[in-house]
Amino acid sequence: MKSIDKFYSAVKNGKHICVGLDPDIEKNPDHLKNSDDPIFHFNKAIIDSTRNAAAAYKLNFAFYEASGINGLISLKKTIEYIGEEIFIIGDAKRGDIGSTSAMYAKSVYDYFKCDSITLHPYMGYDSVHPFLEYQDKLNFVLALTSNKSASDFETLPVTSDEFLYQKVIKKVNEWNEKFHNCGIVFGATQLKQLQENINLIKDLPVLLPGVGAQGGSLEDVVTLFNQNNFTSYLINASRSIIYASNKADFAEKAVEELDRLNAEITSLSSIK
Amino acid sequence: MKSIDKFYSAVKNGKHICVGLDPDIEKNPDHLKNSDDPIFHFNKAIIDSTRNAAAAYKLNFAFYEASGINGLISLKKTIEYIGEEIFIIGDAKRGDIGSTSAMYAKSVYDYFKCDSITLHPYMGYDSVHPFLEYQDKLNFVLALTSNKSASDFETLPVTSDEFLYQKVIKKVNEWNEKFHNCGIVFGATQLKQLQENINLIKDLPVLLPGVGAQGGSLEDVVTLFNQNNFTSYLINASRSIIYASNKADFAEKAVEELDRLNAEITSLSSIK
Repeated sequence: MKSIDKFYSAVKNGKHICVGLDPDIEKNPDHLKNSDDPIFHFNKAIIDSTRNAAAAYKLNFAFYEASGINGLISLKKTIEYIGEEIFIIGDAKRGDIGSTSAMYAKSVYDYFKCDSITLHPYMGYDSVHPFLEYQDKLNFVLALTSNKSASDFETLPVTSDEFLYQKVIKKVNEWNEKFHNCGIVFGATQLKQLQENINLIKDLPVLLPGVGAQGGSLEDVVTLFNQNNFTSYLINASRSIIYASNKADFAEKAVEELDRLNAEITSLSSIK
Repeated sequence: MKSIDKFYSAVKNGKHICVGLDPDIEKNPDHLKNSDDPIFHFNKAIIDSTRNAAAAYKLNFAFYEASGINGLISLKKTIEYIGEEIFIIGDAKRGDIGSTSAMYAKSVYDYFKCDSITLHPYMGYDSVHPFLEYQDKLNFVLALTSNKSASDFETLPVTSDEFLYQKVIKKVNEWNEKFHNCGIVFGATQLKQLQENINLIKDLPVLLPGVGAQGGSLEDVVTLFNQNNFTSYLINASRSIIYASNKADFAEKAVEELDRLNAEITSLSSIK
């Protein structure tokens, strides 16, 4: 299946929870700490338990790069273990001049074989373009992020009636015209702005971090999307799923939490 | 020596050329292509020839990540080979929410042991803060970049008298107050803007890519800095140095080109 089709296949089947595989080795259960590859074995257990219920997996590259070469070996093994059936987001937040972005695309798409990536918009079109040339991938550009300091630049007014993040979304809509392989990242903590911009984003798949540990409300976000018949979204949950327990039962507790989130989405959809 | 002191030691000695070690394996001389680690052996030859004349080395992570795990092994070996004496910039252009940026900092500073990094400003202060906590490092934040699409967002007016990149520079000045370990990236192709903002940037070290292959003029940039008694700058040259020749004499030709650039800077300084 083409990368982007995995995304649409999941969301059309009502699956919207993306499991964030961001393993912090210090939080891993004790019995895994002495294995030959604790990060991979942790991920493997989570994948085994959540595979049928997850819409996608998102791997934040930082959590692997922090362990250097060994961490990147764990990243590669994890992606191979997930396999071809499920949509994989390489949450790498890359972006550089064109010739350099082409190298990052080679890494995340050709080498690590992710289906999707997250990108910084700051340097503009030519920094994003090499990723878009991978026509069957899905390229999520940061629009309004979930963190407090999003207000430093993202919400600055750039014209009398437009904020920077809105300008970014408009540009992403333009970039999307050629191959329809662009999406945006929008923090689930930014509900008011999500509501106000729902028409601006409606042709773009949306990746929403910020539910759970960061304080965003799943119910509010899903209700808003349901009211607008918008289905092309993934809500990421990392810590709340993978660290639902820090004991030997972590993988069971992870799928329990994922099932709970899925059930909440199903129940909200039925009362639309 | 502290990381940041290596920077000041170089520029105070009149060294301003940063050698960009961005090896493109396909451009490497034929005789290296069959070695066990062609990227490292290429870099090693360049470092051997340029070590005494380079102000710093800048390693663009993308060029290593493109070769996956093997590329990152070459990156690590290259940094170790450069050693403790010369300032090393990890040109990784990272930036994410705080807890994730802390992981990127762990990678670039603790694991790869770079002296410096390049950062995306888009997500604001909390995305940059974990890097600043490494007090003796030097953190270069993207301000106005050298690429054409810098005009998509970086030069948008955010108030009646200020562009986005100027707002970024003002913020970086604020962030710099605590540990004096921030700098900015400013494209050497953007001379007019460099001139207009020289007072805004004068307390910040500046890293300038864009001379050579991208079209920026060394003479114009150095003349401007000399006229303003500004010495805290590094001009990066990658392709023009490391691919001065694609034959067996590439390392000799590289240092010839570096010497030529150094001589040009010296001669411009004498006519100040």
